[in-house]
Amino acid sequence: MHKLLILSNSSKEYTRLITEADLPELGEITSLPAEDCEMVFGEPNLIRDALPHLPHLKWAQSTWAGVESLLDPALRRDYVLTNARGVFGRLMSEFVFGYLLAHERRIFQKLEAQKNKIWDDADTGRLQGKTIGLLGVGSIGAELASTAKVFGMNVSGYTRISETSKHVDRYFHPAESRHRPPAHQQTAELQQFASGLDYLVSVLPKTSDTRKIINADLLSVLPSHALFINVGRGQAVDESALVEALTRGKIAGAVLDVFEQEPLPKEHPFWTTPNLLMTFHTSAPSYPREISQVFVENYLLYLERKPLKYQVDFEKEY
Amino acid sequence: MHKLLILSNSSKEYTRLITEADLPELGEITSLPAEDCEMVFGEPNLIRDALPHLPHLKWAQSTWAGVESLLDPALRRDYVLTNARGVFGRLMSEFVFGYLLAHERRIFQKLEAQKNKIWDDADTGRLQGKTIGLLGVGSIGAELASTAKVFGMNVSGYTRISETSKHVDRYFHPAESRHRPPAHQQTAELQQFASGLDYLVSVLPKTSDTRKIINADLLSVLPSHALFINVGRGQAVDESALVEALTRGKIAGAVLDVFEQEPLPKEHPFWTTPNLLMTFHTSAPSYPREISQVFVENYLLYLERKPLKYQVDFEKEY
Repeated sequence: MHKLLILSNSSKEYTRLITEADLPELGEITSLPAEDCEMVFGEPNLIRDALPHLPHLKWAQSTWAGVESLLDPALRRDYVLTNARGVFGRLMSEFVFGYLLAHERRIFQKLEAQKNKIWDDADTGRLQGKTIGLLGVGSIGAELASTAKVFGMNVSGYTRISETSKHVDRYFHPAESRHRPPAHQQTAELQQFASGLDYLVSVLPKTSDTRKIINADLLSVLPSHALFINVGRGQAVDESALVEALTRGKIAGAVLDVFEQEPLPKEHPFWTTPNLLMTFHTSAPSYPREISQVFVENYLLYLERKPLKYQVDFEKEY
Repeated sequence: MHKLLILSNSSKEYTRLITEADLPELGEITSLPAEDCEMVFGEPNLIRDALPHLPHLKWAQSTWAGVESLLDPALRRDYVLTNARGVFGRLMSEFVFGYLLAHERRIFQKLEAQKNKIWDDADTGRLQGKTIGLLGVGSIGAELASTAKVFGMNVSGYTRISETSKHVDRYFHPAESRHRPPAHQQTAELQQFASGLDYLVSVLPKTSDTRKIINADLLSVLPSHALFINVGRGQAVDESALVEALTRGKIAGAVLDVFEQEPLPKEHPFWTTPNLLMTFHTSAPSYPREISQVFVENYLLYLERKPLKYQVDFEKEY
């Protein structure tokens, strides 16, 4: 029999859902880290604190996609770390297309007109025929690309190497890292990707390669009507460069779900930057019902000693 | 050679587009109604005024979907009337899903939080798994049904007879009109359609059958979290019943693009009804580039003496 350690702010709900799943060879479910725990399921920051008390840990399943707190090189890496994947794409898609459509249909301006009793029948924009650029095309990016096609859009994708989604019309890659070219050449490829985009959407995770990849150089090649959306990680954005681009009207707007520091400090300029909308890290919540299915799937593989799904590569940092 | 009369507020643009199309057997393009005009292309209200001056009219192509101004029984019906169809579905889809997503993602509330510098990380809703009810499933309704499936939704459809879209999971119909059942029985079928919907969307045209079909009875069976969207015609709604339902919180909200009287009079209660958003008849503008393609398509059929597409049935009123 296996003992399962659950470390989550929703531990009651996860305990209930996993108990209901009636898994084979599963004994006690606990919320107290102990020497005999082989497996843990929960939030990465809570797992991090428990690591020293789990000498026999073999497998940790994260309830989140982002596992940065477990990637610190000072921490142990002698266990299999799996994250939550495959469940966020549709939620992200609802978020991204919700905000793209709100922007095109001038939802806020129409409300303003209504408040002033003005019959504002000015035509609005549309997604059809527009070009969306995806910074990162993993499972979430692929879902966004697929939805973009439903709305008749053109799709560009910037990825390290992979070209897995058939819904991306044009891929861009940095030159391979073993022959790392000079920085200006890296920039050139990225700028080519960004130039002419109507919308730029970042789904990049936090890694050393993605730090401040959305900087003044990149923002300067976007058309002035472009909208930027960040549903990846805040560290990918040079926040002062974005404030400047929005304040000077170099781009039309930004929707930020993630930030370098969360919650955003009260004195941060983002709170009052024009044409900036914030959504406070809610773009794709971890719904326990779906996340527990990811755990169940991996638990059954674990029992059969098969490779687990959604393994995190500690070196690649995702 | 044929002479074409164009009667439109965008007549310059239409003249340019049709000249560019370089159509066979097309001679003069004019904006002055005359005895020798066989065909007219334009807005229904402008065509209506010209009817008495067009004794040899054979074909009128509307630039709009709604042709109510030409359906008055007092007007002649001795010509073929075709409307613009097939071009509005994708635009309507962007509109409807933009507002559904804005509602679910609490876009206005998140902005309010931002203005007050509140880190509002409360979870939002989603479309996936929700049920949308379409009042009317013609080409626009079918496009909405297809997009709803992309977002993982359940789709109910209420139509007179037809069941053309395969994306509708469950159809509802009024009893056939030759054996017209008592009114309460008609209502029963409609109420069954509406009960349990998360979203009710009307794409109904203005006909004598659809007048005030969205009334207090229908609104009373919608769940209190339901959102109502009207992109069809304003006459389908009992406007006082809707004001009452919203004011008393019987439904969660409404998005109205169309109204019984347009522009909406300044003293109309809609301007200040809670949870009501108005978009001033902009949900699917007639883009001349697309509408002129509808004309071109029909013009070529006309030359070949084949049946025209998108013919309006004066009796059915659509």
